[in-house]
Amino acid sequence: MTVETIDAFHFGKFYVVQPATGGHRSGMDAMLLAAMVAGDGKLKVADLGAGAGAAGLAVASRLQQAEVTLVERSPDMAAFARKSIALAENAHVASRVCVIEADVTLRGKARVAAGLEDEVFDHVIMNPPFNAAADRRTPDALKADAHAMTEGLFESWIRTAGAMLKPGGELSLIARPESIADVIAACGQRFGGLQVTLIHPRDGEPAIRMLVSAVKGSRARLVFRAPFIMHEEGHHFSSFVDNLNNGRAAYARLGRKRSAR
Amino acid sequence: MTVETIDAFHFGKFYVVQPATGGHRSGMDAMLLAAMVAGDGKLKVADLGAGAGAAGLAVASRLQQAEVTLVERSPDMAAFARKSIALAENAHVASRVCVIEADVTLRGKARVAAGLEDEVFDHVIMNPPFNAAADRRTPDALKADAHAMTEGLFESWIRTAGAMLKPGGELSLIARPESIADVIAACGQRFGGLQVTLIHPRDGEPAIRMLVSAVKGSRARLVFRAPFIMHEEGHHFSSFVDNLNNGRAAYARLGRKRSAR
Repeated sequence: MTVETIDAFHFGKFYVVQPATGGHRSGMDAMLLAAMVAGDGKLKVADLGAGAGAAGLAVASRLQQAEVTLVERSPDMAAFARKSIALAENAHVASRVCVIEADVTLRGKARVAAGLEDEVFDHVIMNPPFNAAADRRTPDALKADAHAMTEGLFESWIRTAGAMLKPGGELSLIARPESIADVIAACGQRFGGLQVTLIHPRDGEPAIRMLVSAVKGSRARLVFRAPFIMHEEGHHFSSFVDNLNNGRAAYARLGRKRSAR
Repeated sequence: MTVETIDAFHFGKFYVVQPATGGHRSGMDAMLLAAMVAGDGKLKVADLGAGAGAAGLAVASRLQQAEVTLVERSPDMAAFARKSIALAENAHVASRVCVIEADVTLRGKARVAAGLEDEVFDHVIMNPPFNAAADRRTPDALKADAHAMTEGLFESWIRTAGAMLKPGGELSLIARPESIADVIAACGQRFGGLQVTLIHPRDGEPAIRMLVSAVKGSRARLVFRAPFIMHEEGHHFSSFVDNLNNGRAAYARLGRKRSAR
């Protein structure tokens, strides 16, 4: 018997069914990633490595016309994603969210055959599984394994994102800060206009996460935006990060055209 | 006739003779770079691309036993560096500062023959000339030229720093944030333990400079330290950055062993 939980996000605007232990349980990383999607209308969004669907559902919940495709390789996690979509509480998003059970690292015709088509998405988001794996490793094992592992991971995931996005489409990801060189290398000639936001737990402490936004085909240079400081004054979230986490605000790219409303 | 100025740094603790216009005039970048050198005793420090010597003199002024080698290719700027050292006001540092007129990009025997010897320095600092050049370019020209230019620049300068440093020695540099991928690539297998500090002019604004510290031979992973916000409350420097700029504090690496005093 799989023990599962049903967790509320965005103050109960939507719910996610996920395994109580093991697998990857979603939290703030997924919500910050989802906040990076901004725009109006029938925005087509893909969530690569979607797990139980938290980030993708957060996008569909906040952007009421967005159409979201959850891509997940693990049959178990894809099943949780389908359960999440089927919850009565998620009826307002269910018709706009679908699941594709496929390996993000597929290439060429195999990728298209799995349902990950070329140039149909406006925005691709990803929270690669390295984060969870790395947190369970010792620092020494991390040093030995992490580089080779993540180098290939970002290269293959970002290559797939580049294929699936329309020209000018946006990629958003959340990752550990030490991955920055691998992320930049994987963006290569496919993406430009990288905007990096470092997330520091408290004032004066090193960054623990980074948000990276990029635009397919852009040649604009890399920018480090103002950082996020998550906790101020004894563990209260700063109000802006709190708003992002709870679906009350989007974190749009710098220089992005404002929408009509 | 060359029009020159004599500028006070560290509240008049030392002075720098530099061209009134043209060339590279030193200011806060050089002082923040100098602040990255910490330690006791006869620390041997090389300032690559030293210009008129502001950063190297700042190190010698704050660390009263440090021995500083200014490396500068331009005969004109090297002459300003020698004039700076010879100023009566700089008598307290003059015996500990020397100038080597040499091209930082020299390799192998040619580099050693020019006076840049292998494995003799504890700390190498650099403020590569790209900063000044880039500020004079238009954004479009920058996009076209900057990448190719800086990729080679950091590779050759950091290669030289790697050769000149003792094992375990420290490299410190200040550069534009968009150079981060080139800097990481140039550090390659030579340096590790990169610690990056982004400098934002004001709260909420993108970074305009980055400080990078690295250790020769280290395998430690990259860290983004807490950022600097230069101006607070209507253009007053934050007191910490102000102290670094004025030689009243050092900005040592995270995790660095404290000295005895």
